[in-house]
Amino acid sequence: MKNYRCALTLHSVLKSGVERGKETEIVTFKGKRLNYYQLNERVHRLGAALSRLGVGKETRVAVLEWDTHRYLEAYFAIPMLGATLMTVNMRLSVDLVRYTLEHSGCQVLIVAAEFAELYEQVMADSALELQVIVIDKNEAASFATARDYETLLAAADPSFQFPDVDEDTVATHFYTTGTTGLPKGVVYTHRQLVTHTLAVGFAMGMADDYQAFRAGDVYMPLTPMFHVHAWGVPYVATLMGVKQVYPGRYDMQAIPHIVKDEGVTFSHCVPAILFMILENMEQEGLKLPGWKVMVGGSPMPPALAARALRSDLQPFAGYGMSETCPVVLMSKTSRAEADADPALLCDVGFPLPLVTMALDGDTPDDGTSPREGELLSQAPWLTELYYNDPERTDELWQGGYLHTGDIAARDEQGRYRIVDRIKDVIKTGGEWLSSVALESLMLEHPAVAEAAVIAIPDERWGERPCGFVKLKPGTYDNDEVTEGLRTVFRAAIDEGKLPRYATPDQFRFVDEIPKTSVGKLNKRQLRADMGL
Amino acid sequence: MKNYRCALTLHSVLKSGVERGKETEIVTFKGKRLNYYQLNERVHRLGAALSRLGVGKETRVAVLEWDTHRYLEAYFAIPMLGATLMTVNMRLSVDLVRYTLEHSGCQVLIVAAEFAELYEQVMADSALELQVIVIDKNEAASFATARDYETLLAAADPSFQFPDVDEDTVATHFYTTGTTGLPKGVVYTHRQLVTHTLAVGFAMGMADDYQAFRAGDVYMPLTPMFHVHAWGVPYVATLMGVKQVYPGRYDMQAIPHIVKDEGVTFSHCVPAILFMILENMEQEGLKLPGWKVMVGGSPMPPALAARALRSDLQPFAGYGMSETCPVVLMSKTSRAEADADPALLCDVGFPLPLVTMALDGDTPDDGTSPREGELLSQAPWLTELYYNDPERTDELWQGGYLHTGDIAARDEQGRYRIVDRIKDVIKTGGEWLSSVALESLMLEHPAVAEAAVIAIPDERWGERPCGFVKLKPGTYDNDEVTEGLRTVFRAAIDEGKLPRYATPDQFRFVDEIPKTSVGKLNKRQLRADMGL
Repeated sequence: MKNYRCALTLHSVLKSGVERGKETEIVTFKGKRLNYYQLNERVHRLGAALSRLGVGKETRVAVLEWDTHRYLEAYFAIPMLGATLMTVNMRLSVDLVRYTLEHSGCQVLIVAAEFAELYEQVMADSALELQVIVIDKNEAASFATARDYETLLAAADPSFQFPDVDEDTVATHFYTTGTTGLPKGVVYTHRQLVTHTLAVGFAMGMADDYQAFRAGDVYMPLTPMFHVHAWGVPYVATLMGVKQVYPGRYDMQAIPHIVKDEGVTFSHCVPAILFMILENMEQEGLKLPGWKVMVGGSPMPPALAARALRSDLQPFAGYGMSETCPVVLMSKTSRAEADADPALLCDVGFPLPLVTMALDGDTPDDGTSPREGELLSQAPWLTELYYNDPERTDELWQGGYLHTGDIAARDEQGRYRIVDRIKDVIKTGGEWLSSVALESLMLEHPAVAEAAVIAIPDERWGERPCGFVKLKPGTYDNDEVTEGLRTVFRAAIDEGKLPRYATPDQFRFVDEIPKTSVGKLNKRQLRADMGL
Repeated sequence: MKNYRCALTLHSVLKSGVERGKETEIVTFKGKRLNYYQLNERVHRLGAALSRLGVGKETRVAVLEWDTHRYLEAYFAIPMLGATLMTVNMRLSVDLVRYTLEHSGCQVLIVAAEFAELYEQVMADSALELQVIVIDKNEAASFATARDYETLLAAADPSFQFPDVDEDTVATHFYTTGTTGLPKGVVYTHRQLVTHTLAVGFAMGMADDYQAFRAGDVYMPLTPMFHVHAWGVPYVATLMGVKQVYPGRYDMQAIPHIVKDEGVTFSHCVPAILFMILENMEQEGLKLPGWKVMVGGSPMPPALAARALRSDLQPFAGYGMSETCPVVLMSKTSRAEADADPALLCDVGFPLPLVTMALDGDTPDDGTSPREGELLSQAPWLTELYYNDPERTDELWQGGYLHTGDIAARDEQGRYRIVDRIKDVIKTGGEWLSSVALESLMLEHPAVAEAAVIAIPDERWGERPCGFVKLKPGTYDNDEVTEGLRTVFRAAIDEGKLPRYATPDQFRFVDEIPKTSVGKLNKRQLRADMGL
């Protein structure tokens, strides 16, 4: 086998995508419109420019930017140099942003000028020595000595030759915040990104029209590009050569109009983002037929799916996490099935090609039988380690399976449904209650905009559920809503959908339910607020 | 990266496919109907049985069988043991079948009972010592001491554990007959088969409905399973979990009825097979709307595409060869484009994801400009060598690209069209004439069933084209047909479609045009018959 080996690297994803995309557009909202040839040229210029600054194998280059074509350029150019792209989560606290930059060992930072203040705060208390490249450089004193992104590109060689890169070279690096401890660094190699790209494209291509992503679709991420490389879909979209639209900083009022104006047909987001978008669409009476939206990150409540359907969207669930690149499960739903039973859209469905999913405690004999347990995974694209953190890596990979920390239920068809995070499940009277199930039920009350449920220690039962309610705009009596919620729970209990002891002991009314930096319910914060 | 690595092996293709396919059927015509669970069980039983016979890493197991579910079982079980599946081309001469078995170093043979005579002839003059397993064993003396396939399976452990296999282990091995010399052994690793499977599935899934292959389709190969693992599509179909139909020994009259009765929607074949199927369909007046047929192996003549369209098929071209696993190019045609210009269906189109195609002599600057030249390729799944044949391997991989031996033309869109085999092109008066183009034109004459063109040495022009004609059933005057053909050529020349010197000097009328073992025009034989 000495003669020839073709590595699975991002080089071929870009090259193949450009051949397919050609003059198809890549659009940044309120920004530039490129075609694939121009993207390719800019990636090569960026590669040349970074290479002249000394970026090469082992260099870590951080990016701090909204969702733009520049970010897409960085997705390719940095890993194609053999360097690592570190995507900075700007929604973290200043201390944690600093921590992630320091922990990852970044030497170069590409940063949009509007992050000047954050940059100043981070650097004020850090020994980091960064070469800084500024996007949209202005007069901000922070960046006085920094280089300008476009000036660098303009001066760089568009026919730059990227070096050959071993497929096991780390391509991307970012941080995930868990429920405890400091953020964990997750890394992906070229090989992992490429196999993920192929398998996601395969699964989405062969899927029913209702949820397919194919040539002719128009793509726009609504998961930030700093978060698990926007779920890896920009790589899939680029390889397909489809039109791509980048929304910049998310403006929830503008987003439905971008979808309409640019003809977007495929997006993905967490439930909280979909919720906000639907709010705005409903206020304007806007419908967006044919807009397929994969929802993940947290379970999609059936009430949210129903609401999206009423605005003519095609929502469906996917599943993954920072540690899984991320997609490993996807709903498999046709329009007929969605019409007959919209709740199916909320199940995370079936493993992608080449993915093994299992429940903790499965034996070879019952590997397909219906039961509940912690969801485990194996696939060619799961993170192999937490960066410089052997202890938590060992926990993650206990027994040779990646432990997701999620409880899932598997039905007779082998379809998975997420029950809850292990840490969020309520253990009451020796039984488990899913906080997700209770939240979904609360959302069925017409006055409830957002809901969260956490466990409160209880002497008799071990734990008991406590519900948090954010009301919709309008005037409501808290006691009446509480009584209404109890009625909703009684009905569900009478129908056998929930156990007798499922009704939260108390409902607390709050102005805001705290969210994590990626838009998930922040139950850690809720527990802290309760002094737990 | 020490913690975990998930190899790209056929183990996960089968496992993933079974999860998706479940109770979907796998049918052998006039034979068994299995579902995916049963396929999985039988693959495990076959693995257990072979393992007990000593088959393991490095063992080569030959299979001599028509297209059946048993062959599909061998596609998985043998490589999953770390052994090599050697697919025997039974259409070769006895001497060459013996040569390929000996050259590959086979130790085990799985053979259908009806090949008893061939087996006897091969073994009569060979020192091969084979363990033989017979499918449908009967009283034939040849197989007196051989084991019976179904008896072995019945006694074997259905929960057999396949060993872990390195992804660079050779999985398959077969022989390709070139225009000169002995057959060449081509080998593929697990990694190559898996990346090919993913990329083909990706390309076919995202394609326009006209030529897509997706969940819900029903698959039947019409390229023999001994030939480049039926173009790798059984692996794609299995991973998708779709219904599969295996036609057994090809019966051209039965095939359209199998398609109709089993609801087949996706197949692939060489032009000669499509030709025979259409003949039978036309005689019966049968139409098969919605049957998508990928045509490759040789260029599809536009007249054949038009004929297929008249029977409501959806033909389109793909491109590859034994050395390329095989698919590297595929037409990208929508129904609207096919209606507007059916000739587009005959162009081999665009590179698959992760495939690089180039023309010999391309420079970095004109890598996308329209021109003609030998077609070169790089992709993660091309054969890395000819087995035990370093000299021809070096020729194949000259300069780091796989040399296809085909002349192709690339247009402004980057679309490829096959002009001719390098060895079949006619060099006349310092210019090239494509034998394929001349054959396509000959087929436009209403009396011509099959056509072939070869080069005849010519003192003045170097070479001149000579046409061979097989007439359709009926009574024709050869001189009139010759005159008719000349008129067809004159018209094409007047329209500027061909150069002035393109008309063959002579047309020879023959009862049969010789074909190779895989149904391609055998021009080597034609040249030999002419004493060239």
